[in-house]
Amino acid sequence: MRATVIHGAHDVRLEEVPDPVIELPTDAVVRTVASCVCGSDLWRYRGIAPVRRPTRIGHEYVGVVEAVGDAVTAVRPGQFVVGPFYSCDSTCPHCEAGFSSVCEHLDWYDGCQAEAIRVPLADGTLVAVEQPAEELVPSLLTLSDVMATGWHAAEMAGVRAGMTVVVVGDGAVGLCGVIAAKAKGAGRIIVISRHAPRQALARDFGATDIVPGRGEAGVEQVMGLTSGIGADAVLECVGTADSIRDSLAYARPGAVVGFVGVPHDSDPSIATMFSRNVGLRGGMAPVRNYLPQLLPLVLDGTIDPGRVFDLELPLDRVAEAYEAMAERRAIKVLLRP
Amino acid sequence: MRATVIHGAHDVRLEEVPDPVIELPTDAVVRTVASCVCGSDLWRYRGIAPVRRPTRIGHEYVGVVEAVGDAVTAVRPGQFVVGPFYSCDSTCPHCEAGFSSVCEHLDWYDGCQAEAIRVPLADGTLVAVEQPAEELVPSLLTLSDVMATGWHAAEMAGVRAGMTVVVVGDGAVGLCGVIAAKAKGAGRIIVISRHAPRQALARDFGATDIVPGRGEAGVEQVMGLTSGIGADAVLECVGTADSIRDSLAYARPGAVVGFVGVPHDSDPSIATMFSRNVGLRGGMAPVRNYLPQLLPLVLDGTIDPGRVFDLELPLDRVAEAYEAMAERRAIKVLLRP
Repeated sequence: MRATVIHGAHDVRLEEVPDPVIELPTDAVVRTVASCVCGSDLWRYRGIAPVRRPTRIGHEYVGVVEAVGDAVTAVRPGQFVVGPFYSCDSTCPHCEAGFSSVCEHLDWYDGCQAEAIRVPLADGTLVAVEQPAEELVPSLLTLSDVMATGWHAAEMAGVRAGMTVVVVGDGAVGLCGVIAAKAKGAGRIIVISRHAPRQALARDFGATDIVPGRGEAGVEQVMGLTSGIGADAVLECVGTADSIRDSLAYARPGAVVGFVGVPHDSDPSIATMFSRNVGLRGGMAPVRNYLPQLLPLVLDGTIDPGRVFDLELPLDRVAEAYEAMAERRAIKVLLRP
Repeated sequence: MRATVIHGAHDVRLEEVPDPVIELPTDAVVRTVASCVCGSDLWRYRGIAPVRRPTRIGHEYVGVVEAVGDAVTAVRPGQFVVGPFYSCDSTCPHCEAGFSSVCEHLDWYDGCQAEAIRVPLADGTLVAVEQPAEELVPSLLTLSDVMATGWHAAEMAGVRAGMTVVVVGDGAVGLCGVIAAKAKGAGRIIVISRHAPRQALARDFGATDIVPGRGEAGVEQVMGLTSGIGADAVLECVGTADSIRDSLAYARPGAVVGFVGVPHDSDPSIATMFSRNVGLRGGMAPVRNYLPQLLPLVLDGTIDPGRVFDLELPLDRVAEAYEAMAERRAIKVLLRP
């Protein structure tokens, strides 16, 4: 069969390769109905990521099942199927908790920009749908990555009805982020975009405002549109350190930036957060907001946090208090005037 | 009156200073019943943060109102009050959204390790409680910072009943994080701690497991305790880059690290997240988990993400597809075999 092979920067070729076959009883072979090119494929094409040897490429597809291994029970030959950009077992604790992209048995395809592909873990990976109308194929294809990725940004950012949402990035993922925000009932959707045709599509998808600026100019424009408060949720669909920095600045205190742009020049902690799908959220405690909840718990004896004071001193011995804590002799020192 | 003044590293003195007075009609003067020393005060004491001139210090207190300005209506002289470690108006959009620690009119005290303090924005800041029993004073004092801060870590991490929670740090905030996790119904509370007396207090507060290791050893131990899955929520109560790195490693995919340890050697983005109380959450989209929600939306026409394909080519023109996307002539290219 024919499949796409990347040989190096700006060198992509369609080549004859061996037909995919069932290698494991959990495999399926899917004949491709459509595939596509992802923004992340361009890293190698542009020479930003290295290509060490000719490599099959592509990870988005819809197709028809051609063959299944003996252990496969959820799909059968002839069915139209959609699959994620990875394969997963759908039974491990991470899959069951909703994070199949960190599946304990995560696996990758050989390259989906091809006439057919081998799908590992077919039962956990593929979803069969009735043969769709031809005009639905492009939308179904987006579910294998970009639409689901824009949706993930909105899920992680906690988009709810009525919110003001900023979408950073006007690529396919950002545009799908607009669709996701709209589907979740966002009241206002501000898209950071400089390209007129993409701005038009963003508006068609539900964007209410376009901000062409980036950096400080963009932040100023978003603040101008939100009465100086910032957005209730931000979808970061680019992945550069600059874009993450801007996204954090668009967000109002308490908001979450849902980030799905693969970070490629960020702090190692941010790269870890991305690769493990682990969030980070906090800051100075809004003590005044918590007091009405916590005071009753102290007054009725439910909690007894005063026990963290393991030393009490009169105020005129405050220097000793500092010394005891600095030397770790005391957890925390209470002072009485 | 007498107040604590820090002159430099290891040089803390109780000195005679002018009595606080009502300076603005929104002020109150509070006579201190108790104050305390915070871990963050130790940065200057240890010489980690500079002390450029003699400076009043301390930000935690409970006390009795002595005087109020003409505009103050919520508290009156003679009332016992608790206040956060900052002052806030409780009316701005950030306060109303639950994030008073990023109040548009946030203000700081002159120094609370003193016989009395001036409290700006008294109506928004102070909470009056009936004169408490003497033994409740320490616990009420913790509400001004450490207990509410441990609570914030648990809130931000999304701790819910039955969860396995890791608390990183056995200082007063970490210990209060244990109390918070317990109060929110955590099923298992693992504390990272090396100090026997603090381990004992942590267990009293509800910790079920103690992990003395840090770095890779600590991660291995937490994974061993959680069947290799990781924790459902992590409370980061230290603030170093190492501690944040470890916290991210303890968390299972999908979990959130609630971080309240002031970051002092982290990436600028993490410092921004802290100072603005903005979260960051995402990673590779768990497409397989979203497919059952998204497929019906495509099939019934609610969403039409296929419109992101603005170019369609046969597979044998795949090289053109890459070129068109790399040159930004196409948003995304669909390929047909």
